[in-house]
Amino acid sequence: MATYRLVVEYDGSDLVGWQIQPEGRSAQGELARALSVFLRHNVQPTGAGRTDAGTHALGQVVHFSTEVDFVSERLLRGLNGLLPADIAVRRVDRVNDDFHARYAANGKRYRYRIRTAKAALDRHRVWTLYRRLDIDAMQQATKYLPGRHSFAAFCKQDPLPNNFFCTVTRAEWSHAGDDYAFIIEANRFLRHMVRILVGTLVEIGQGRMTPKSLAALLESGNRAAAGATAPACGLCMEEVFYKD
Amino acid sequence: MATYRLVVEYDGSDLVGWQIQPEGRSAQGELARALSVFLRHNVQPTGAGRTDAGTHALGQVVHFSTEVDFVSERLLRGLNGLLPADIAVRRVDRVNDDFHARYAANGKRYRYRIRTAKAALDRHRVWTLYRRLDIDAMQQATKYLPGRHSFAAFCKQDPLPNNFFCTVTRAEWSHAGDDYAFIIEANRFLRHMVRILVGTLVEIGQGRMTPKSLAALLESGNRAAAGATAPACGLCMEEVFYKD
Repeated sequence: MATYRLVVEYDGSDLVGWQIQPEGRSAQGELARALSVFLRHNVQPTGAGRTDAGTHALGQVVHFSTEVDFVSERLLRGLNGLLPADIAVRRVDRVNDDFHARYAANGKRYRYRIRTAKAALDRHRVWTLYRRLDIDAMQQATKYLPGRHSFAAFCKQDPLPNNFFCTVTRAEWSHAGDDYAFIIEANRFLRHMVRILVGTLVEIGQGRMTPKSLAALLESGNRAAAGATAPACGLCMEEVFYKD
Repeated sequence: MATYRLVVEYDGSDLVGWQIQPEGRSAQGELARALSVFLRHNVQPTGAGRTDAGTHALGQVVHFSTEVDFVSERLLRGLNGLLPADIAVRRVDRVNDDFHARYAANGKRYRYRIRTAKAALDRHRVWTLYRRLDIDAMQQATKYLPGRHSFAAFCKQDPLPNNFFCTVTRAEWSHAGDDYAFIIEANRFLRHMVRILVGTLVEIGQGRMTPKSLAALLESGNRAAAGATAPACGLCMEEVFYKD
């Protein structure tokens, strides 16, 4: 048996997300199809984490096993030729057979981009928001995020996760002109967590909530008191971290 | 009379280029349509330069005149609401009535992007080229570009321009991993000039021509001896320079 780890980039605009759904094109489904053609047998690739419909990935990590031993470069070229234009394999590595893209991961980095003016070239990659944002207030609120907290207030609770605790190791904004980006690293992420955090931070940036209310939300776990879920298209899974 | 200068961004992927054509959507045509609705009279916007079908702009500069005096901010919002999603007005300024987007320009900057691996998110913005490139050779050849030269070898000669001379004030490559970008600034550009320069520099990067052959091409003006025209989608008009 041979196990391979892939680093996969996709434009989520026309995808139903990472995971195979009853209808529509998914990154996992397209990858499964390309793999089955290349390997001549069916295989279900496992991803490090799900992404929502419209959300992008620069560094989704995927593993699968097969009987045949391939040269990584041949696998990379073969899969890229078989995959549609909006999905690209960036890297292929042969790994130990006990490697698991999700269980072996010890963290991920996401980036959420906002543009406060109309975007043409990046229109599928940003949340276009015609509002003035107080970046100082957003940065102040963001300081409450690092550390281990319950993110119950920042999570779609359907289905209910078994554990709301995540350890945030990095959370910051970068800002230039009309462009804002929220970068967050954590050991794990709950469903819609980054999008609800951004939705809440934008409320704070608009002065509709105070920076301190973010600390209160971490405390209370009250989803209803947090902001709306920001659109999926601004979000990108940038990198998955492993111990090695 | 009031004259306005617009800075316009567009995704050229689905456009026939800047200029109005008998068929298809052009940036100029879409802008003329939005302006005619907003101003309630027909007006032909003038751009700083043409771009080919598929070529993008971050900073195309455009002027037009009208009888009514508008607040710039209202014009910006109104036009952006009327324009399709792939065209955005980034800035509006009231200017002197003698301002001319093309004649007043004293230079432009273009960027040409190459990816030597499959691109998903940026697939419409790069030339995907599955070849190894010798960046040192390309950089060496690029050193011949600054200064005033005839670019007859790097120009689509149909129709024949009245003057092949351009003064290049900046020409350089940036490179990281599989990403390559050629940045060039000049007082003027001939038709397909950047694309033919990139096509030739890529031949040099593949070892099929020497860096010195670029100097010979500037000397000879022999279009047939230069490289092929690189694809339009890798090119972006980044900025137009004016004296003020």
